[in-house]
Amino acid sequence: MLHLRKSLFRILETSAGKRRGISLIFNLLLITIITLNALAIVLHTVPEYNQRFARLFYDFEVFSVGFFTVEYLLRIWVCVENEKYHHWFWGRLRYIFSTAALIDFLAIFPFYFTLFATDLAIVRILRLFRIFRLFRISRYSHAFRMIQSVVNDKKEELILSTILVIFMLIIVSSVMYYVEHSAQPDKFSSIPATMWWGVTAMTTVGYGDIHPITPLGKLLGGIAAIVGIGLFALPTGILVSGFNEHIRVQKKPRITYCPHCGKEIVNH
Amino acid sequence: MLHLRKSLFRILETSAGKRRGISLIFNLLLITIITLNALAIVLHTVPEYNQRFARLFYDFEVFSVGFFTVEYLLRIWVCVENEKYHHWFWGRLRYIFSTAALIDFLAIFPFYFTLFATDLAIVRILRLFRIFRLFRISRYSHAFRMIQSVVNDKKEELILSTILVIFMLIIVSSVMYYVEHSAQPDKFSSIPATMWWGVTAMTTVGYGDIHPITPLGKLLGGIAAIVGIGLFALPTGILVSGFNEHIRVQKKPRITYCPHCGKEIVNH
Amino acid sequence: MLHLRKSLFRILETSAGKRRGISLIFNLLLITIITLNALAIVLHTVPEYNQRFARLFYDFEVFSVGFFTVEYLLRIWVCVENEKYHHWFWGRLRYIFSTAALIDFLAIFPFYFTLFATDLAIVRILRLFRIFRLFRISRYSHAFRMIQSVVNDKKEELILSTILVIFMLIIVSSVMYYVEHSAQPDKFSSIPATMWWGVTAMTTVGYGDIHPITPLGKLLGGIAAIVGIGLFALPTGILVSGFNEHIRVQKKPRITYCPHCGKEIVNH
Amino acid sequence: MLHLRKSLFRILETSAGKRRGISLIFNLLLITIITLNALAIVLHTVPEYNQRFARLFYDFEVFSVGFFTVEYLLRIWVCVENEKYHHWFWGRLRYIFSTAALIDFLAIFPFYFTLFATDLAIVRILRLFRIFRLFRISRYSHAFRMIQSVVNDKKEELILSTILVIFMLIIVSSVMYYVEHSAQPDKFSSIPATMWWGVTAMTTVGYGDIHPITPLGKLLGGIAAIVGIGLFALPTGILVSGFNEHIRVQKKPRITYCPHCGKEIVNH
Repeated sequence: MLHLRKSLFRILETSAGKRRGISLIFNLLLITIITLNALAIVLHTVPEYNQRFARLFYDFEVFSVGFFTVEYLLRIWVCVENEKYHHWFWGRLRYIFSTAALIDFLAIFPFYFTLFATDLAIVRILRLFRIFRLFRISRYSHAFRMIQSVVNDKKEELILSTILVIFMLIIVSSVMYYVEHSAQPDKFSSIPATMWWGVTAMTTVGYGDIHPITPLGKLLGGIAAIVGIGLFALPTGILVSGFNEHIRVQKKPRITYCPHCGKEIVNH
Repeated sequence: MLHLRKSLFRILETSAGKRRGISLIFNLLLITIITLNALAIVLHTVPEYNQRFARLFYDFEVFSVGFFTVEYLLRIWVCVENEKYHHWFWGRLRYIFSTAALIDFLAIFPFYFTLFATDLAIVRILRLFRIFRLFRISRYSHAFRMIQSVVNDKKEELILSTILVIFMLIIVSSVMYYVEHSAQPDKFSSIPATMWWGVTAMTTVGYGDIHPITPLGKLLGGIAAIVGIGLFALPTGILVSGFNEHIRVQKKPRITYCPHCGKEIVNH
Repeated sequence: MLHLRKSLFRILETSAGKRRGISLIFNLLLITIITLNALAIVLHTVPEYNQRFARLFYDFEVFSVGFFTVEYLLRIWVCVENEKYHHWFWGRLRYIFSTAALIDFLAIFPFYFTLFATDLAIVRILRLFRIFRLFRISRYSHAFRMIQSVVNDKKEELILSTILVIFMLIIVSSVMYYVEHSAQPDKFSSIPATMWWGVTAMTTVGYGDIHPITPLGKLLGGIAAIVGIGLFALPTGILVSGFNEHIRVQKKPRITYCPHCGKEIVNH
Repeated sequence: MLHLRKSLFRILETSAGKRRGISLIFNLLLITIITLNALAIVLHTVPEYNQRFARLFYDFEVFSVGFFTVEYLLRIWVCVENEKYHHWFWGRLRYIFSTAALIDFLAIFPFYFTLFATDLAIVRILRLFRIFRLFRISRYSHAFRMIQSVVNDKKEELILSTILVIFMLIIVSSVMYYVEHSAQPDKFSSIPATMWWGVTAMTTVGYGDIHPITPLGKLLGGIAAIVGIGLFALPTGILVSGFNEHIRVQKKPRITYCPHCGKEIVNH
């Protein structure tokens, strides 16, 4: 039994060592099921597919949830093999509340809840939760770990520039509200409503559903667009430099020379 | 009395030394009130909230102005503790005209003015001044000081690229006016009107309310969009490099040791 | 005969050595014909030009295909002069399936096929294949080889960020579908339909044909635009740094001399 | 007489040496007149200003042209003081065809031509030429010389990426034409018409006057927007790095260490 638990742990979590081959096959299978789930979530909203393949969508849903449930329970069973979750009860409880396990839970929970729920509104909201199945792929993704580490590195700067963006958005939208409200009372009806204009203007999306028409409003709108480009350049620049640093660190070493003895130094 | 002034000065201005704990609590309180003011300014323009919570909005307004007024007067009283504003009269006068004190004044002045003002137009314009309460947060914001120093560092380049952007905007809009005016005399009615198109085209916002329809106008519009991307890349690039430099400078130099002679090397 | 083949190979492929002058003239002629073909492909879709110059378009088409066919056959004949395709049969077969030769084939094949095809739909689709004639210019283009090498260098990062973009697109569009579907069932009709909004929002194109109208949808739309700017900054940053690296590598290392000991220093 | 010519040359061209004070005043006057001309060109197209201040606009026009004409003739007279244009006839002729002198000529020529021209269409086109008066400011602008030198440095890369952008535009628009033409024959009427969509999509302007409606067209439109962001990142990146290099070159020297003797080297 303990031997089985160890083997299962290796297959499910480490993807290294003894059961590497089986682990690889299992992980590929899991990624395939998650990808097919993404496809099912997207396509089952197209009315014609939903009607024609209703049975297929439902069967695949049941199969996916079944597969994920078994996998979830097994993971809880074997998690104690990990040093971090060593204790048979408190370790398992801590594992259950880890980010990865919570995502796994949110991917299956809505299905079981909707079996008992009768209120249609709740069922529809919970269906949205199935998107968490996509996040499960983050377990296997190099990209997500990279983003996580970049965002961690640049946390301070990103929070700072987010505050700045929100601050500028409030200022620009407030001024625009007082400028345009009398000319277009239905569109620039309140500052929160004007903030929708503010976002589309400063991100340069510009859907065209709301835009200033008075000369003063247009002047302000032009300034907002220019400021927006500069402002959004900030987080962009931070992220780009973060990614560049990250990529550079993983690359070849840099060679400099010691100012004292003149010999070569390899900086990793 | 002098002792009280010293203690108050420490609480209000330094946030260091003896009364550090009380200073921290006071500053957190101030930031909370400012944030709530921002929320009130934004939400009181939503008709339904304004009607339902009219009383709450007014009471909070009176409380805020009261709080800010007391704080403003206390700051003027204690400012002489600062070496810069040492003189009991001229020092206080100089403090009153400092940027921080002017922002504090503009945050409370409109309220008192509107008590006596009877002209509705002026009252409405002065309400806009309440946004200055948001700027008060700049006193506590790391971000604002950073932006200020970056903009100061790159002043010359930014002015230069702003002139360039305005120059290009005039040229592109003038040519577009002569090209499109006869085809769309109501939209491209004058060069100033065409400049609204110019800004939305060169910042790539593109609301769609005004755009060329003649083949020549479309060709020019395409060139304007491409030039615009290149042109707005300029201030963006300047700001990004400015922020990067600033962040790099604040990160302490990395010290390593030469593997050959063992001496210290400072890597900037 | 063998001598002629060698001369022809030099003219067609090497543009160096003995027949350099003729090779240059031939290549300039080829680029001119390809450019004129691009012009013809673009202009023949304008109804008035197509009617007035129908004969000219057709004659130029026949001439181009004739020229390209002769050139294609000659290239197959002489390719064995290249060491890579030495064998008289297998070498030629391998040459025929090389990228360059396949592009050459796709540039002429549609014309011959449409001579025998009777189904109009196929003829119209095949006409689209004439665009491959433009790709022929890649043979002579420095730019294309540069892009190819940059994309090769940054392959891993680009795939990674593409997966991320698709992932975010699915998440954002799925959530937006559940938020906006009941308010605009005709526009946000399904998740695939909502993905069209997702792309235009996250790339900040914003045509305005589809956009959220509910407060929650607008909030999500604003977040999507901001996230989109950050997200698309990623591949942009990767490509820009790739091109910069490429340009830097091709610039020869700068050699200076130490002012103290006079020895050569290579600055990379 | 020769002495007067020398003094005038110093005032008009060098802004250094003996007559520096007068030269500065003259140049400031010239920049003021050019700026007022820009304002006049922009504002005289606003119907209400044009009617009310018709006399003022005309008088200022006559004054400006008079001032510029005298200045133009004086510059031709004194140019022989410059070593480059030493010869009394050939030197002056070469000066007349220099870029700066040609811009000066184009700023005054339209006015004289329109005095004799009777055809209204030509008069209106020539009015457009008055914009050249704005370009005259480039004589005094640091920014223009900087841009000129950056564009010169990066000439090769910019031409390369412009060709790429045009190439991609033709490819994307051609494919989109064949995909969308049958669904929207009035909007995607020909490849040149589709190229207007192509530019607005790839620069992410997106006016919304023309956009794909078929699923395949939307897919292609999404890819075009993503490719466009990457593609326009190219010239942007080149220009930004060009400006950064330019700014860096003008800044402080970089310190490295000689790999042979270990001593400090200052790299300018």
